[in-house]
Amino acid sequence: MMSPLLKASAVSTAIFLLGTIVFAREGNNGKGSPIFGVQLPSGYRRWQVVSVAHEAGSLNDIRVILGNDVAMRTFRSGTRPFPDGAVIARLAWRYEPSSQNNAVFGQAQSFIAGDPTNVQIEVKDSRRYAATGGWGYGQFENGIANPSAALLNTCQGCHSKLPWTEDRIFTHYAR
Amino acid sequence: MMSPLLKASAVSTAIFLLGTIVFAREGNNGKGSPIFGVQLPSGYRRWQVVSVAHEAGSLNDIRVILGNDVAMRTFRSGTRPFPDGAVIARLAWRYEPSSQNNAVFGQAQSFIAGDPTNVQIEVKDSRRYAATGGWGYGQFENGIANPSAALLNTCQGCHSKLPWTEDRIFTHYAR
Repeated sequence: MMSPLLKASAVSTAIFLLGTIVFAREGNNGKGSPIFGVQLPSGYRRWQVVSVAHEAGSLNDIRVILGNDVAMRTFRSGTRPFPDGAVIARLAWRYEPSSQNNAVFGQAQSFIAGDPTNVQIEVKDSRRYAATGGWGYGQFENGIANPSAALLNTCQGCHSKLPWTEDRIFTHYAR
Repeated sequence: MMSPLLKASAVSTAIFLLGTIVFAREGNNGKGSPIFGVQLPSGYRRWQVVSVAHEAGSLNDIRVILGNDVAMRTFRSGTRPFPDGAVIARLAWRYEPSSQNNAVFGQAQSFIAGDPTNVQIEVKDSRRYAATGGWGYGQFENGIANPSAALLNTCQGCHSKLPWTEDRIFTHYAR
């Protein structure tokens, strides 16, 4: 038999763990990103590939851009603007040389994905995000929404500099 | 009314086009890759992402590695060896600076996927490919199997140099 004290302790540990899991899964306690309230979409890691890229300089990452079904249909058809419901996910990892691969190839040529840096999510909702061209933004580290509003203003600031024909999206579909 | 000559011409053009499409879809007229007979799997462009990489040097590409459901389960669980039925696809594109992105960022930092170079497919079948560690290889350009047996021998030659714990697969799952 478990003593009442141990039992109470086990129950409160379980409640604490449950709370932690819910917090991590919902990102920022369910509120999502600042300004936009964008959430980390469930299942985004299994979405289809739009394209890949490497950002050098201070970012120094290697990244893949994924889309939900609505976004992929639009990328493949080449039509713009993206319809409401399109969601794009950009996953980035530290850009690192691969000692394993370079040893096999006999020369330093291979760069791979290291630890994850962050995930950025863009959601098209032409009414809700009318002030930012129809797109809402969020950045997530370890599943938690980054709380910086200044950061998200730099997102939409850069995206708004693209030619209007791109509908504020940098990436083109890689055929 | 179409003249008999025009009609015959139209029919033979249609047959020619149909032949071209079937050839392109099946890759190397249905025979698949040399040595291994590996085919380009239908729907591979919609598979899930294992990881991304950049190969510098003479390859000078940026690439994504995708897996079918069997392969993805194994990558996510971390178990080895891969079971029969696992198929891995490596899609590569020319590694190119993005003038569009660099103009927005105000500095040269962005490298993106240019034209496709080739798609490589690895199929696990421990009986059929017992002589090469259970893996069969194919390389495809524009959907057509590359006919060079020498090329495929270099594939399996490099993969066989990896530590046996990797089951001849270079890529690790990017979390």
